[in-house]
Amino acid sequence: MLRTHTCGELRLTDIHKTVTLTGWVQKSRDLGGMTFIDLRDRYGITQLAFNTNWNSDLVEKARSVGREFVLQITGTVIERENKNLMMPTGEIEVKVTTFVVLNSAVTPPFTIEDHTDGGDELRMKYRYLDLRRNTVRQNLELRHKLALETRNYLDSLQFIEVETPVLIKSTPEGARDFVVPSRMNPGEFYALPQSPQTFKQLLMVSGFDRYYQIVKCFRDEDLRADRQPEFTQIDCEMSFVEQEDVLQVFEGMIRHLFKKIKDIDLPPLPRMTYEQAMREYGNDKPDTRFGMKIHDVSSLVKGKNFKVFDDAEVVLAINAEGAAAWTRKQIDELTEWVKRPQIGATGLVYARHNPDGTVKSSVDKFYNDEELSGWAKELNSGTGDLILVLAGPETKTRKAMSELRLEMGNRLGLRNKDTFSCLWVVDFPLLEWNDGDPNLLASLAGRWHAKHHPFTSPKPEDIALLSSNPGAVRANAYDLVINGVEVGGGSIRIHSSELQSKMFEILGFSKEEALKQFGFLMNAFEFGAPPHGGLAFGFDRLCSLLGGADNIRDFIAFPKNNAGRDVMIDAPSEISQEQLHELRLATLPLNKSV
Amino acid sequence: MLRTHTCGELRLTDIHKTVTLTGWVQKSRDLGGMTFIDLRDRYGITQLAFNTNWNSDLVEKARSVGREFVLQITGTVIERENKNLMMPTGEIEVKVTTFVVLNSAVTPPFTIEDHTDGGDELRMKYRYLDLRRNTVRQNLELRHKLALETRNYLDSLQFIEVETPVLIKSTPEGARDFVVPSRMNPGEFYALPQSPQTFKQLLMVSGFDRYYQIVKCFRDEDLRADRQPEFTQIDCEMSFVEQEDVLQVFEGMIRHLFKKIKDIDLPPLPRMTYEQAMREYGNDKPDTRFGMKIHDVSSLVKGKNFKVFDDAEVVLAINAEGAAAWTRKQIDELTEWVKRPQIGATGLVYARHNPDGTVKSSVDKFYNDEELSGWAKELNSGTGDLILVLAGPETKTRKAMSELRLEMGNRLGLRNKDTFSCLWVVDFPLLEWNDGDPNLLASLAGRWHAKHHPFTSPKPEDIALLSSNPGAVRANAYDLVINGVEVGGGSIRIHSSELQSKMFEILGFSKEEALKQFGFLMNAFEFGAPPHGGLAFGFDRLCSLLGGADNIRDFIAFPKNNAGRDVMIDAPSEISQEQLHELRLATLPLNKSV
Repeated sequence: MLRTHTCGELRLTDIHKTVTLTGWVQKSRDLGGMTFIDLRDRYGITQLAFNTNWNSDLVEKARSVGREFVLQITGTVIERENKNLMMPTGEIEVKVTTFVVLNSAVTPPFTIEDHTDGGDELRMKYRYLDLRRNTVRQNLELRHKLALETRNYLDSLQFIEVETPVLIKSTPEGARDFVVPSRMNPGEFYALPQSPQTFKQLLMVSGFDRYYQIVKCFRDEDLRADRQPEFTQIDCEMSFVEQEDVLQVFEGMIRHLFKKIKDIDLPPLPRMTYEQAMREYGNDKPDTRFGMKIHDVSSLVKGKNFKVFDDAEVVLAINAEGAAAWTRKQIDELTEWVKRPQIGATGLVYARHNPDGTVKSSVDKFYNDEELSGWAKELNSGTGDLILVLAGPETKTRKAMSELRLEMGNRLGLRNKDTFSCLWVVDFPLLEWNDGDPNLLASLAGRWHAKHHPFTSPKPEDIALLSSNPGAVRANAYDLVINGVEVGGGSIRIHSSELQSKMFEILGFSKEEALKQFGFLMNAFEFGAPPHGGLAFGFDRLCSLLGGADNIRDFIAFPKNNAGRDVMIDAPSEISQEQLHELRLATLPLNKSV
Repeated sequence: MLRTHTCGELRLTDIHKTVTLTGWVQKSRDLGGMTFIDLRDRYGITQLAFNTNWNSDLVEKARSVGREFVLQITGTVIERENKNLMMPTGEIEVKVTTFVVLNSAVTPPFTIEDHTDGGDELRMKYRYLDLRRNTVRQNLELRHKLALETRNYLDSLQFIEVETPVLIKSTPEGARDFVVPSRMNPGEFYALPQSPQTFKQLLMVSGFDRYYQIVKCFRDEDLRADRQPEFTQIDCEMSFVEQEDVLQVFEGMIRHLFKKIKDIDLPPLPRMTYEQAMREYGNDKPDTRFGMKIHDVSSLVKGKNFKVFDDAEVVLAINAEGAAAWTRKQIDELTEWVKRPQIGATGLVYARHNPDGTVKSSVDKFYNDEELSGWAKELNSGTGDLILVLAGPETKTRKAMSELRLEMGNRLGLRNKDTFSCLWVVDFPLLEWNDGDPNLLASLAGRWHAKHHPFTSPKPEDIALLSSNPGAVRANAYDLVINGVEVGGGSIRIHSSELQSKMFEILGFSKEEALKQFGFLMNAFEFGAPPHGGLAFGFDRLCSLLGGADNIRDFIAFPKNNAGRDVMIDAPSEISQEQLHELRLATLPLNKSV
């Protein structure tokens, strides 16, 4: 090694030792006769001292190095005069005796500090410099530790990590696949997996019993904020289990991770049905760090000649505790906020629960005091609270109310990143109607679409509804939700080839299509498939949650931007004609009709 | 759980317990009044007992189940009358009281036994059944353990596992890339990484100091036996190191793995230069489980009027100990063997070292006893040994002699799979001349090509040769070789952008090409790159070696065949016109000139 110690290692007990350190110049201070350099590596920072009284040549040399130069120095550990007890190495410094510049550095385009002056785009372009910042490096250290603890936990329960293939077959029933042309098989393509779903089910058919994998998956979707075309899952599957077994094992995993990473003892995770989540939170991934549940006040408010409410399919209300003091201006601004196209409400009705116990609303001409007291009672509001009401079509209004609830949670400081509220959402619907999801191929519109995926088992008691009322069939499916984020999800799978065929039929596959796409799985089920189920966690998201951050990008070493581009390496990019020709492919001009 | 115990768990101490087991029917025996079923799961086999005296309905039901049916049974653990001490559960059986067929099974196309009657193709098509076989499952269990121990070792030395991207940029300087068309960026492509080389170097520039990753890599090459288009590497990199540091750390890793997996204490690994390996073994990955080194006997044998030797560029010999008793027929067959086109020798000369001490050769008319004794002395042969001689052009003959040596090692039983001989081969040449490698794009022929990759550092003392005699420049590059297999390889990297530019120039890149392909790396080097180096291990190969197997396929859950096809899922395959159109691509007919 070019060093004897790291820059985070030396203490008072090392005094008088001769040491060699390597690292980057964090900063240097020139105090006339003395020069100090902070030398940084992954492990910490050590102060280097130069003094004209010791060696004036060395001081000259030290003055000439700039930020981010790479140095190798040898010297003696001495006690500092001015100790810095905020730094682990702050009681010592190294009196430098020899000094090599291993590499010079041009000035970085932004400062390598916890709070940098670099904007997002610049940081992405020079990601290798951004990664020098402690905060970003610590995120990736957390990711490493999270992966290791995940493996330790699952290994202790006899799960086997099995690598499944990356070059697989395109199955355009879900989101779009990335495809890979095969040179050896011209005209044919591999696809990159959106998940190892079918392979992990085959491993259960093989008797692997308990499988996991921390694995890259790929989805070619129009990227929204904070989605990546490649992402990492903790993918798991178990045999001879019922839903309760899966929930127990993975609740244990989440508890293990919180304990090891955050030293937090999570309480047992509550369960909530999809129906309840939609009703009380307007959302299948409720943020339960705070209450402010949604109440359907339709029956309470209709029939009082207020046309907006009378004409609405549904009238929903929440109680924002302690917000009665909000000014008219604040409420007007909130009204504008709910009317933005992303939220889509047509207006906002409110009622203040005043300190004197009266309730005053923005629609007082339609509702008398007694009626408004009825609102307060329904919403369990007290003096000082603010009731907010939205009305309109059911689905849209529930969604808007969910957004408003989260926004009020933000504004009232109820969504602290260091507080964690975890729960299981269960009993999802098996199917949903696709009326033109832009993330699916256009040819799949106007069909039932699997809410989780086509291998999810319906609840046995709902199987009879499959033909008569597919939308009402509930699945043995579950999501793990933390702080309003879906962190994981899974299901008990179908293990009968007959029921699986039936599912493909409902999803609009012809027998031929089903066989062509998934024949191998249905065949496998003929040879003795065990009951099985599992789930997958979004690893990037789990890292960012445990890291107390909003976005996943800073927990990915080399992320892509919202256009799916790696701006550092400039990918994707054109390839040579020679490569295209070998693949028997031609690119079509953008304006050519196809 | 649908079970209380696994099929590998019950012992005499469990007698009288009521248990529920789940698993597959391995076999059943109908002995009239009694029926026995062997129930199998991943953990073992337990014998189930049925008796008409206990319950004749159950016996009827037990008789009706076939091989590989999935059962759930409940019963009482009883002591066996006929104990089988070869099985961990062989002292007990379960007297079944209730019995559910969880799934039936059609008859598998081959037997689910350690030695199956299924051929390779059938086993691949029904890989999920092949994986039920103990031997194959144990291979994947070994792989899991190997990965876990690798991580434990590297984690203990403060290596961080960092995931690098899979969707990167095509860099056609090496083997061919698999490419991925981007729908969001029409006409542009991502490439799948052949290795995370540039990213791990960027992580060193970022100060990560010690990085590793167990990672899938991809290479679109014309597949040879036992190569896979996707393969797994243990990829590692360290900063502030010299070659010796890298060798120490990873020799430690290999020693750790052998100890943990095989309980073998490896001796310190010898080092051999590339030059010595080529000279003594004709091969840069010598199998050192046995000697039989290659001797250049040119000076000894030339000038005796034997035209074949006189005209040859080189005459090489090995001493096959104990093979003097081989019959003429055996030697004739060996002669045919060396003349096969894969070996390419024109003939084989031999000399027997007889029990009476005389040496008799197939070319006695040219060489007298004294001269033949000279051969024996040079090759250090004793009575009972057989000297084998090949002559011809240097490169070809050395390669043929290496093959012959390995073949003789096989035939003489010197290549035991349970014996391990590991070594480092060092001082590789930096460059080799590409005169039309079919695994490279045709446009790269007639150029210098990087033997390891373009980022490998030349030895400082050889840098002066870069311009004058590139072929003579040695690299700070090293391979780990076990039993004649290159298991890992790496190098100290270039960390100066100037030297890196020079390398690209030698490799025939124009300045523009180099910037377009690798500008991000050369830029990164401007901001303070530390000296760094590392290596990568072929994880599939390491698994198969430690598993005592020849081929890597049985250590991969879902491998592809030699045509790059997954015959189980039938990939690659055609994709829909809708998918192609969204990607703005057209496939060209095979016969169309492009």
